[in-house]
Amino acid sequence: MTGAGPYTVACLQTHPCFGDVAGNLARQRELLETAVGAGARLLVLPECCSTGYCFEDEREALSFSEELGRGPASELWLELAARHDVHIVAGVVERAGGAVYNSAALVGPDGVVGAYRKAHLWNREKEIFAAGDLGFPVYDTPLGRIGMHICYDAWFPEAFRLPALAGADIVCAPCNWVPVPGQPADQAVMASMLCMTGAHSNLLYVAAADRVGEERGQRFLGRSIVVDYGGWPLAGPAGADGEAIVYADIDPIGSRELRASNPFNQPLGDRRTDLYADLLGSTTKEQLA
Amino acid sequence: MTGAGPYTVACLQTHPCFGDVAGNLARQRELLETAVGAGARLLVLPECCSTGYCFEDEREALSFSEELGRGPASELWLELAARHDVHIVAGVVERAGGAVYNSAALVGPDGVVGAYRKAHLWNREKEIFAAGDLGFPVYDTPLGRIGMHICYDAWFPEAFRLPALAGADIVCAPCNWVPVPGQPADQAVMASMLCMTGAHSNLLYVAAADRVGEERGQRFLGRSIVVDYGGWPLAGPAGADGEAIVYADIDPIGSRELRASNPFNQPLGDRRTDLYADLLGSTTKEQLA
Repeated sequence: MTGAGPYTVACLQTHPCFGDVAGNLARQRELLETAVGAGARLLVLPECCSTGYCFEDEREALSFSEELGRGPASELWLELAARHDVHIVAGVVERAGGAVYNSAALVGPDGVVGAYRKAHLWNREKEIFAAGDLGFPVYDTPLGRIGMHICYDAWFPEAFRLPALAGADIVCAPCNWVPVPGQPADQAVMASMLCMTGAHSNLLYVAAADRVGEERGQRFLGRSIVVDYGGWPLAGPAGADGEAIVYADIDPIGSRELRASNPFNQPLGDRRTDLYADLLGSTTKEQLA
Repeated sequence: MTGAGPYTVACLQTHPCFGDVAGNLARQRELLETAVGAGARLLVLPECCSTGYCFEDEREALSFSEELGRGPASELWLELAARHDVHIVAGVVERAGGAVYNSAALVGPDGVVGAYRKAHLWNREKEIFAAGDLGFPVYDTPLGRIGMHICYDAWFPEAFRLPALAGADIVCAPCNWVPVPGQPADQAVMASMLCMTGAHSNLLYVAAADRVGEERGQRFLGRSIVVDYGGWPLAGPAGADGEAIVYADIDPIGSRELRASNPFNQPLGDRRTDLYADLLGSTTKEQLA
């Protein structure tokens, strides 16, 4: 496979208004057009970016859901991806088979490329969304092999490791990060560090788009970030307040040989799968208490 | 089990001289006595702390090896642990069954509690040491359930996850960290961040003792650190140069209930083991190139 060469990824840090799908999509269109105009070829939007996130219950989430490729958000992403020959990763409340998932859509110029459904549901999300049932798929695109995960997934190293093992060059992460209790003021936010160590321990890029603002009493964290495969920020973290577009030039395909030949860090090749059987165990904290 | 209550852990950042076992142990004795005098009940020493680390080959490593509990380093640790009623975790070049391992010994007042053998061998270590064959054992002590890993292991999230799944309250990590190429001056060192995200993503304490100095052209990183179960430094990182003792008060047993009831972060209970089968795959980077 020949490389696409370096290109620009953009993480769009948005401020959606709960339930105002038309207004949110209008603002998204402006920000997407701005990023495309600045040369971005891969654009990442936050979790549940067209609807808002703090649903009361499953029924309310269902009322804002759309089938992948067939609702108002999908239509915007499909239109812009086709017109501008770009790829878009965006969080969407997905309806499928009667269930509602907290999903990420990957849309390209030729249509929907694929989806990811959030595997690790956070806190009350378990009462609202069905648990993701797609695993951690990786989609081979002209921009590299793209894996996805969503927000709290990053708290699980498995959500970086599994895309890496499936060959991902980059993990695109729609997020609605919330402040972590106990965060010291003099330290990087834990979300940033999880992106950085996740990238470093898997030698892949991470592009995380987070939202800002407050919704039904829940504040969000901002701090959208693009991390290189060494684990260091290429751009961001953005601020905690206000919309932002975080741009970085990355080379997911062109860097493959360099990543594979790194003598200091072989995080996939040096794994000890012969010792890892317990990773599949069903041990839970309750059993350990 | 009743809790031991809070106690002091000490990470001893030493500057061993290659091959000078007697001198290194004499200095270790002084530092261990100092830490014990300051109230430490759990003491962590660096990787290969009595011998040095940059062996030419397996034969040289073997010439400095000792059987667990029966060599000059073990004798010092056993003596001090018994006299002062403390536990010591220390890196040792272990000889067993004709092989030489890069190991960590856990020694208590009643003798050797257990060992860990480095699972993920870094770079040239593969030519020198046999690969660890004990998995990631966790030892139940009066100071809590102690897991161990060594240096480069921290680059593998599995080396935090497996002790956590086995019930560890704390991971003690003897290290010989080396500078990571590309480390930006304005960021925390990657080793610190790996300890912090490893602790946070597994809700356990991490106590990492690293060495300083230079040996056969290889510099070491210092920056010994104790991290709380939320992922934040309790003490350290120490400096990059010079010996240091990093003290922190921790409560591994008393915090179990608090950790188990954290509504924001259930890194073990929220795992999706049904999706993790690929973590046991033998996929390597070479296959992905």
